[in-house]
Amino acid sequence: MSDNEYINKHFPLLATIDSPADLRKLDVKQLPQVCEELRRFIVHFLSSNPGHFASSMGAVEINVALHYVFDTPNDRLVWDVGHQAYAHKILTGRRDLFYENRTMGGLSGFPNPSESEYDTFMAGHASNSISAALGMSIASELTDKQRKIVAIIGDASISGGLAFEGLNNVSSHPNNMLIVLNDNDMSIDENVGALSAYMTKLTTSKRYNNLRYKTYQFLRRHHIITDKGKGLVLRFNNAMKSLLSGQQNIFEGLNIRYFGPFDGHDVVQLVKTFRDVKDMTGPKIVHLHTRKGKGYKPAEEAPSVWHAPGKFNEETGERIVSDTTGKPLKYQDVFGHTLVELAEKNDKVVGITAAMPSGTSVSMLQEVMPARTFDVGISEGHAVTFAGGLAKDGMHPFCAIYSSFLQRAYDNIIHDVAIQHLPVTFCIDRAGLVGEDGVTHHGTYDLAYLRCIPGMTVSAPMDEHYLRHLMYTSQLEGKGAFAIRYPRGGGVYADWKCEMQELPIGKGRKLADGDKLAVLSIGTIGNEVQKALAKLKEKGISVAHYDMIFLKPIDEAILAEVKDKYAHVVTVEDGTIEGGLGSAVSEWLSDKENAPRLTRLGIPDEFVHQGTVAQLKHQCGIDAESIADTICKILNQK
Amino acid sequence: MSDNEYINKHFPLLATIDSPADLRKLDVKQLPQVCEELRRFIVHFLSSNPGHFASSMGAVEINVALHYVFDTPNDRLVWDVGHQAYAHKILTGRRDLFYENRTMGGLSGFPNPSESEYDTFMAGHASNSISAALGMSIASELTDKQRKIVAIIGDASISGGLAFEGLNNVSSHPNNMLIVLNDNDMSIDENVGALSAYMTKLTTSKRYNNLRYKTYQFLRRHHIITDKGKGLVLRFNNAMKSLLSGQQNIFEGLNIRYFGPFDGHDVVQLVKTFRDVKDMTGPKIVHLHTRKGKGYKPAEEAPSVWHAPGKFNEETGERIVSDTTGKPLKYQDVFGHTLVELAEKNDKVVGITAAMPSGTSVSMLQEVMPARTFDVGISEGHAVTFAGGLAKDGMHPFCAIYSSFLQRAYDNIIHDVAIQHLPVTFCIDRAGLVGEDGVTHHGTYDLAYLRCIPGMTVSAPMDEHYLRHLMYTSQLEGKGAFAIRYPRGGGVYADWKCEMQELPIGKGRKLADGDKLAVLSIGTIGNEVQKALAKLKEKGISVAHYDMIFLKPIDEAILAEVKDKYAHVVTVEDGTIEGGLGSAVSEWLSDKENAPRLTRLGIPDEFVHQGTVAQLKHQCGIDAESIADTICKILNQK
Repeated sequence: MSDNEYINKHFPLLATIDSPADLRKLDVKQLPQVCEELRRFIVHFLSSNPGHFASSMGAVEINVALHYVFDTPNDRLVWDVGHQAYAHKILTGRRDLFYENRTMGGLSGFPNPSESEYDTFMAGHASNSISAALGMSIASELTDKQRKIVAIIGDASISGGLAFEGLNNVSSHPNNMLIVLNDNDMSIDENVGALSAYMTKLTTSKRYNNLRYKTYQFLRRHHIITDKGKGLVLRFNNAMKSLLSGQQNIFEGLNIRYFGPFDGHDVVQLVKTFRDVKDMTGPKIVHLHTRKGKGYKPAEEAPSVWHAPGKFNEETGERIVSDTTGKPLKYQDVFGHTLVELAEKNDKVVGITAAMPSGTSVSMLQEVMPARTFDVGISEGHAVTFAGGLAKDGMHPFCAIYSSFLQRAYDNIIHDVAIQHLPVTFCIDRAGLVGEDGVTHHGTYDLAYLRCIPGMTVSAPMDEHYLRHLMYTSQLEGKGAFAIRYPRGGGVYADWKCEMQELPIGKGRKLADGDKLAVLSIGTIGNEVQKALAKLKEKGISVAHYDMIFLKPIDEAILAEVKDKYAHVVTVEDGTIEGGLGSAVSEWLSDKENAPRLTRLGIPDEFVHQGTVAQLKHQCGIDAESIADTICKILNQK
Repeated sequence: MSDNEYINKHFPLLATIDSPADLRKLDVKQLPQVCEELRRFIVHFLSSNPGHFASSMGAVEINVALHYVFDTPNDRLVWDVGHQAYAHKILTGRRDLFYENRTMGGLSGFPNPSESEYDTFMAGHASNSISAALGMSIASELTDKQRKIVAIIGDASISGGLAFEGLNNVSSHPNNMLIVLNDNDMSIDENVGALSAYMTKLTTSKRYNNLRYKTYQFLRRHHIITDKGKGLVLRFNNAMKSLLSGQQNIFEGLNIRYFGPFDGHDVVQLVKTFRDVKDMTGPKIVHLHTRKGKGYKPAEEAPSVWHAPGKFNEETGERIVSDTTGKPLKYQDVFGHTLVELAEKNDKVVGITAAMPSGTSVSMLQEVMPARTFDVGISEGHAVTFAGGLAKDGMHPFCAIYSSFLQRAYDNIIHDVAIQHLPVTFCIDRAGLVGEDGVTHHGTYDLAYLRCIPGMTVSAPMDEHYLRHLMYTSQLEGKGAFAIRYPRGGGVYADWKCEMQELPIGKGRKLADGDKLAVLSIGTIGNEVQKALAKLKEKGISVAHYDMIFLKPIDEAILAEVKDKYAHVVTVEDGTIEGGLGSAVSEWLSDKENAPRLTRLGIPDEFVHQGTVAQLKHQCGIDAESIADTICKILNQK
């Protein structure tokens, strides 16, 4: 049965919806069935083509109700992190392409304006929706467009500083935007922070309603409250709510009208609520409680695991986990184990993660030393400045953040760590090409944006052992700000555990001598170089290979050696070609006499989209095959 | 009279205070006199050696009371932006060095840990104090140090996303930190945002106290409130406060005990308050109302102007403004005027500033088109994402942000603008060396950190006319993300106003032909090159000069020309030597046959401290004299 036949048979209502206009033709009573079909649809396709599962399952009704009530695409839905938005993709003309979600040339895993007019803004990094939606909202006022703007943000994303900056500005300029708070009380892992605790308590209750009535009568009798100002009554309600819940309404504090919390899984009620608030002037927020993984029992029970569960058996909910016995561990796990080891030996060592304890394996330290582990939520900037404060007063923080998310903390690295030469180790996970998450998630700029910071040590291990050596070295006395980048996925050794040793800062190593040409590489891409050189050796071509280990300070002794011995140098890195290892080497060679020619391999200066890591490496010309080809071409030209 | 004699005579009490320990020997009744002397001291020295005036005047009592109550330096005072902290510097052993504040080799204008053990953390960029103090607070718990930690933050700084991330994490881990909110209802310019409006209303009143009592009795009678839970009574008070002020207590909402607001100029009361809260467990915030410029009438009346007033007459308060008739305008003003011109011609153009309307001259647009001007407060990340939203729906934002502050928005530039190829012009003011503000404020990394972003146009004008051409060009159809960087200070033409013209993207221009050597420069540092070449011409040395205008895309035709014609190329830029123009040129040359030798001049790979711009240019080897010397050396070696 073709995919189309399968869809027609199993999802009869969904099969008729080619765009939100079709959805809006349905009776509101049919929407629960749309939701039910959407859930099964997501389960079916994600079971064989993995993606972000639990968040999208939890937001099905929100997706349906919004497209039902709002006139998309003229009205703008701005999703905060696309994890929520699979139903949106399916309802907006991409149903039949969904099977190729997150694959090369297929659909992007996140909303992406270059893919669909319904995707209004990039949604890979958290917390940007309110600011972007505010911009659109004001643009619609300035251009006299009749259009509603809705930002849909999760309770984890709203704790990011960017979201707060957005909230703080929402009431500054006239606009009518709606913020939908999709509150499932989780980010990828458990939620943290006061705002999260606060939202859990924000609730209406019978007791509240009774008290409100009694006290209202009392205050009116004393002429303290009159009916003149409707606003005062609303504020009164909120003040009473605060009293009973022991909490203040932060949103009302920021001059945004607050409604809720409501059940985010009652699609009929959602339609009613959105219709009620749709035409209200001024900014407002609707707070919805949802459940991550809703409608699929295994996911409801273990939503962290089911955030992105990989392949699974649709019927049983059993996850299809490939047998990893004897296979190399992931780099993140080598990091996690090593962090625990270091923390056991050095009581200054603490671990920090920004909402990614399992994604970074900081969770391993969390389990054994919770008091020395800090999950700060989606707050990369705070994570780094907080690390600076810890370091200033005697601790040695290991700050584990994905490369592309560390962009959020760029100023903090410079101002709050590097200038003060504070001992902080940045463990930069998901460096280089990350594969299916695509353009917003590749960690391609870190080498370039860190190299220009004075005093930073910037390094990348070629394998698990060097990851351990670098981690060990970084926490020794006097090393200052120390970056170690490593990729997503598994390492190269079955046995990762080695004795850790101190590495001399700024010293690389020679892996092989050669005839005419030398390759300099940094990080795990060196393993592709090794494979390329093995192929060339079979052809009788002997090429030198150096693993630089450190981008900064760079090993000038190696540079001097290759300058003297070789007519051609090739640099290989899995970072952008502009500003990383290739640049550092070209800078050094550029003022030398009789410098060898240089060929720089790396990620080209363009945005790279999704695919498997292997596909993307090939596309960028940095897999073993491409490297061997490039070297052959160079040698043939000579 | 020597400075010392002058101090002894005019500041008798201050002259006895060589450290906070001396301060603590005084009777509390003497503190008002200390404050009075401090104010006169600041007025006296800043009148001849300019600095940040109004903020420091407003925070004198806070400085004195904190050092009086807390056991500094064992206890930690973490200042958020050093503008507040001149009294702190004077009280902590730097009284006699204060005359050389902000000068080369002298005191840094901001707290700087490398200068004093009393300066606990870097305080050049806003909003970092809470995160850093939380780190220190937890470090003191983990290391069993008996120590109090105090963050002192202004009401403008607390609106930054980083401060919010800090606040959101304050109650997550056991700690006893104190946050002092110095609320003068201003940043450098007028304050903006909901949080600011909120704090203005956070107040106690007679009406509130009466109502609280009456309602409390009523609720007790109805057994709704009992005295059992003290917490409930506290919450009740806050809820009532919210009711009357129409505001919610955001801080209590974030689980931070709130006290205030109190008068921040009553030093005796401040001492009492700090003593009261000092030993309380758990995080708490003390909210103080202060007045910017307090105690110096001209500054109280015009606090924006007196933020950093330059030299002034101590007696009369008259600012000593040098006659600028016929002198070139500042770049920021050329930007401001040009923005207005463009906005008049193109109704898509809007202006955005992050709390710096006068510092960037976005104020000029604000005056004539307030609805198309957006001051978003200290929120650089939001500023850029908001610009992305505006651009997505048809506007063309000009986002004017200082270079070093734009580091705060790095991810936003990549994720929310560049990936989507949105038409946003980044007008990057204070690029290069900024002079007296020193190490935290130099705009030295922008060329490097922007060059690695795919699709960005990165440019720098050599003069006012090219600033105008670039601004004009950037807002034409299809140009995407477009960065224009320019320095602090004045331009080169008496008549800046020229017809604006479209520049071809990625095309530089030849300014002079030469014999053996070519200089490539970008931006206003090209004028130093011009002066250097004029000197060399006098000696009969003819050197070619190209103004690249664009760093990205770089003009490969020029590179090909200089490669063919010259044996040596020198690049000159006022940005870091790692990753900018010199790197781009070295990359391009590195794979060419018979490439010329390259010498890269720029800001060396180290942190540069304060001084005049001229001193610092010389120190970095990029003033006319140094450039000429370098060229002579190169030519003599040949």
